Amino acid sequence: MTEPRFLDQIKWTADGLVPAIVQDAETNAVLMLAWMDRDAVVRTLETGQTHFYSRSRRSSWHKGGTSGHVQHVREIRLDCDADVLLILARQVGGACHEGYRSCFFRRVEADGSLQVIAERVFRPEAIYGG
Amino acid sequence: MTEPRFLDQIKWTADGLVPAIVQDAETNAVLMLAWMDRDAVVRTLETGQTHFYSRSRRSSWHKGGTSGHVQHVREIRLDCDADVLLILARQVGGACHEGYRSCFFRRVEADGSLQVIAERVFRPEAIYGG
Repeated sequence: MTEPRFLDQIKWTADGLVPAIVQDAETNAVLMLAWMDRDAVVRTLETGQTHFYSRSRRSSWHKGGTSGHVQHVREIRLDCDADVLLILARQVGGACHEGYRSCFFRRVEADGSLQVIAERVFRPEAIYGG
Repeated sequence: MTEPRFLDQIKWTADGLVPAIVQDAETNAVLMLAWMDRDAVVRTLETGQTHFYSRSRRSSWHKGGTSGHVQHVREIRLDCDADVLLILARQVGGACHEGYRSCFFRRVEADGSLQVIAERVFRPEAIYGG
């Protein structure tokens, strides 16, 4: 069952963006959520590495371009409403700028507090300074 | 390492919403992404079942309230920027209103077309009419 090209099916927000969930293709851990514009989706398809949209710079950027922590895309899925992407990728290093493999490194406890449940895989200051 | 109550840490959008990724606690499959307002987060915490925000009805709603396909929350995580929730849940039936277990039942092929990669787990017309 084949449908038309998916780029033309994506339902973008009013700002021309679509949220993209990145899932670790090896462990199935959810690594992060970021936004893509059409250019970021095209670059992701062309290069096989994730690109996202930066609101501050108003342009797409290459994830891992500075840190080397790129995401090699294995598979892209589109949801039923065509307004969310799921990207299965092989993550080099860590997805999170705070040094964790996944951005979801804090769990809500029964008392409503947050608990860090992961170990850092790199030192952020070694890459981003500070 | 314990931090203050997470509800007050969430960075809501200008509309007072936060995106929530729901992941199958048993298979680790990503099931869906939907939006929550503060009320939906509170109801999710109180009931142990996911609630989301409906833009058309401008109120929170109980996922599975009609279909019975509820999501029993196992764990909630918050990302580094405190603007995305990850909810690990036990899914009854299917998360997708089109009858699939996951809303991400279509894969982008090398030629840019979309391919359905899952089987339906229920007939949507049996629940939603049509």
